[in-house]
Amino acid sequence: MLSTPLYILDLLGVAVFATTGALVASRKQMDLIGFALLATLTGVGGGTLRDLILGRTVFWTVDQTYLVTCFAIAIIAFFASHLIQRRYIALLWLDAMGLAAYGVMGAHIATQNGAGFFVAAAMGVMTATFGGMIRDVVSDENVLILQEELYATAALIAAFAYLGLTYLGVPPLYAASAGTAL
Amino acid sequence: MLSTPLYILDLLGVAVFATTGALVASRKQMDLIGFALLATLTGVGGGTLRDLILGRTVFWTVDQTYLVTCFAIAIIAFFASHLIQRRYIALLWLDAMGLAAYGVMGAHIATQNGAGFFVAAAMGVMTATFGGMIRDVVSDENVLILQEELYATAALIAAFAYLGLTYLGVPPLYAASAGTAL
Amino acid sequence: MLSTPLYILDLLGVAVFATTGALVASRKQMDLIGFALLATLTGVGGGTLRDLILGRTVFWTVDQTYLVTCFAIAIIAFFASHLIQRRYIALLWLDAMGLAAYGVMGAHIATQNGAGFFVAAAMGVMTATFGGMIRDVVSDENVLILQEELYATAALIAAFAYLGLTYLGVPPLYAASAGTAL
Repeated sequence: MLSTPLYILDLLGVAVFATTGALVASRKQMDLIGFALLATLTGVGGGTLRDLILGRTVFWTVDQTYLVTCFAIAIIAFFASHLIQRRYIALLWLDAMGLAAYGVMGAHIATQNGAGFFVAAAMGVMTATFGGMIRDVVSDENVLILQEELYATAALIAAFAYLGLTYLGVPPLYAASAGTAL
Repeated sequence: MLSTPLYILDLLGVAVFATTGALVASRKQMDLIGFALLATLTGVGGGTLRDLILGRTVFWTVDQTYLVTCFAIAIIAFFASHLIQRRYIALLWLDAMGLAAYGVMGAHIATQNGAGFFVAAAMGVMTATFGGMIRDVVSDENVLILQEELYATAALIAAFAYLGLTYLGVPPLYAASAGTAL
Repeated sequence: MLSTPLYILDLLGVAVFATTGALVASRKQMDLIGFALLATLTGVGGGTLRDLILGRTVFWTVDQTYLVTCFAIAIIAFFASHLIQRRYIALLWLDAMGLAAYGVMGAHIATQNGAGFFVAAAMGVMTATFGGMIRDVVSDENVLILQEELYATAALIAAFAYLGLTYLGVPPLYAASAGTAL
């Protein structure tokens, strides 16, 4: 189980990625089902892959909060997206935030499962980038993460900062805050 | 294990999706290997993801009937596809049929594994839509499911109808028939 | 565990696929992060899917050598790719080599896990083709494996040759050499 602050960080990451999925659905003028599909795929995609590879129970199958969050965001975004004028800018900012949160979470969970340093770093980056990759591939956009090195770099730095601090004996909670803030 | 009627429904879903994969291979004028690859990916893709996420043994690794069905359909489609004049129409109809069958199966299996309502509904839709998504992404088509809301909606209705009836105490078999018919 | 020759064959397959990923990154003029991402995704993608489907521990989470190999190849390719004049030709050759090695490994591991003939053949082909498929889909290239039947055919022949020899009682090691050589 995750401690409460990490649980909130996790839920926040899912929410932010779900929002970027909904923004792409909005840009492509999809209907409500399209919003829900893209928001959910983007929101839980990275974490699903992480859990499959580490042999854990997939997180959203035992806690419905994650799926309900994705659905709620899709519905809100569907009816309110005309309010957001500059969708692409919002997408970039949200992506960077989600990447940092997810990079930390992925590295944290991998470390807890006894993964080595490189494996934990790779899991952090993978968890952070996979949801957005699915979003861009499925909606036939250019894969953002490969265009804008900034974002993968952000995830990598967050994961490394977290891992570095943890190895130095800093309690995970503070390390997680530091990693996300960076 | 699945009861006999559900097993037939499952096999039918795989066969229908494999056929849509073969039809896309035909439209792209691929060779026999391309037919076999696309038919198999589309046929078993959704169910594979479902089994991975639920932590079950992947269905086609223990029962060769599924793979043999996909290969047979690919071979038949390769030599007979010139007989089908209006391939795209056939694709749409088969997709809708497969979605309904798979939506029901996904929700059924998730429920049997103790999943909650939202999780079961999401698994139904995911199982139903994932194979077609792989097909379209790999063959560089527009993702049908995001273009034609009809189809995701069909899967969703089938899954919900099945879940609703089951919660009311209707035996799974009848509920499955009703869900697929809708 | 794999015996030493099979371990070397496996590592070689990962290295060759990682190189094709790096070559595509080079063609798309990506930065170092893009090189590392594509090399890793392509290198370990097929084997990851194989392990997930067979319910094994994902190979690169317990042996960091694989990831370090992918990272090293990405870094070398990033600084040396201008030396390779004819990248596309190199890509085709490397792909064919990787396919043969991976087709054999996939069939071998599936057989060891008690899979039937068709399942083992399918796992061989899937392991061999999946990494390249991810590479092409993510980098928005045409999926090479569906364009050039040669390659899927090579993987299929390698897997079948390996399986056929093994069923005849040839020790796995010799069968693997023969399959790869073909």
